[in-house]
Amino acid sequence: MMKTEKEENKAVVLLSGGLDSTTVLAIARSEGYSTYCLSFAYGQRQLVELDKARQSSTILGCKKHLILNVEIDKIGGSALTGSIDVPKDRTMEDMESSIPVTYVPARNTIFLAYATAWAEVIGARDIFLGVNNLDYSGYPDCRPEFLTAFEKTANLGTRAGIEGRNHFTIHAPLMYLNKKEIIVKGLSLGVDYTSTHSCYDPDQDGLPCGRCDACQLRLKGFAEAGFNDPLTYQPINKDK
Amino acid sequence: MMKTEKEENKAVVLLSGGLDSTTVLAIARSEGYSTYCLSFAYGQRQLVELDKARQSSTILGCKKHLILNVEIDKIGGSALTGSIDVPKDRTMEDMESSIPVTYVPARNTIFLAYATAWAEVIGARDIFLGVNNLDYSGYPDCRPEFLTAFEKTANLGTRAGIEGRNHFTIHAPLMYLNKKEIIVKGLSLGVDYTSTHSCYDPDQDGLPCGRCDACQLRLKGFAEAGFNDPLTYQPINKDK
Repeated sequence: MMKTEKEENKAVVLLSGGLDSTTVLAIARSEGYSTYCLSFAYGQRQLVELDKARQSSTILGCKKHLILNVEIDKIGGSALTGSIDVPKDRTMEDMESSIPVTYVPARNTIFLAYATAWAEVIGARDIFLGVNNLDYSGYPDCRPEFLTAFEKTANLGTRAGIEGRNHFTIHAPLMYLNKKEIIVKGLSLGVDYTSTHSCYDPDQDGLPCGRCDACQLRLKGFAEAGFNDPLTYQPINKDK
Repeated sequence: MMKTEKEENKAVVLLSGGLDSTTVLAIARSEGYSTYCLSFAYGQRQLVELDKARQSSTILGCKKHLILNVEIDKIGGSALTGSIDVPKDRTMEDMESSIPVTYVPARNTIFLAYATAWAEVIGARDIFLGVNNLDYSGYPDCRPEFLTAFEKTANLGTRAGIEGRNHFTIHAPLMYLNKKEIIVKGLSLGVDYTSTHSCYDPDQDGLPCGRCDACQLRLKGFAEAGFNDPLTYQPINKDK
């Protein structure tokens, strides 16, 4: 009875604990959604991400934070879950020229499938995720045509589908923003980027390397936005 | 060098250990595919299914059998994973009139997403699953339009997609068969249905109840096919 109509708009937010998805969570909150955050433990090297996700989930006032174990590492095929080395010190041209070794096969399809399941159970219609078609153009499952296809799949593969109505909307508010614009947007919404993690290859203390693709894009984004990245980097990279 | 061209056609087969998916595995083998079976442990009541899946995987000569833990039970929303009672002794009309409580939200989307990931890693182009649009018409994710949408999603969300080619084909050879026809097909391919399980509510010894929707459809299928179901049912239902 005390809830406003807007408060009852539930959304599932895929929250990795990275800079992008944390910004997306802040955007969903700013639009009045009651947010249910979904994270995955999947043998990723950067488990520190999940700690950051927990922090942001609390700070940004999520209704629930569900962390699911998914055994993507058993499937293999990625530097993020397997024994392939994470590349360092690549140029922007290198990053843009091919699918990164950090690509995890069908990852967003798997994550969105879980998000759809949870959304159906809790009665949410909106699913948010932090994919971006500029900085991560090498990832096939970050493209708008993929999201359109998934949305159709979700609407056909659930109760909503058999009842003949479109239920789910996939929101990717960062799709056409570059890293600088994402950071500016997040800061304007009060995001504390201390509670985010981007590095593909952190050390045992969780400190980012400053040299992998993700760190480079993040540092470049902060530089272009005219702000300091609040994270502490590994000592060897402290002058970055 | 000793391999024939046909032998190198890899397929991922979603194998639940049920009657349908085991028949599909036999079909894929009969078509010359080198099969990689994928099963899921997801808090389902009928864990005996996985034992049956292991048996059939061995009997039918699969290259590999991967069993992934997926925490669908944490998401809830189904009699198969939660505390909702499995309905018993329903009529065929009841079964056909609504989405069953045994519907697991977005299950086939999740399972196909994993199958796509594994297929991409091992270099398989073909994914088989045992969905059926007749006996299970209440499940939205068993419909052909859902599979078509998923296939497009898989082709857009993977390397194949970004390289501009269609890679994955989803095969649902049982789509338009009734249970009788599935059983006849399987028996013609030498399937031993002792190594399959259908019941939604087996007892502690894994014996099927004979009264849930799945048992009723199975028993009806065997009766119509003119064969005896080789399974032993729970004593209380022994006269079924």
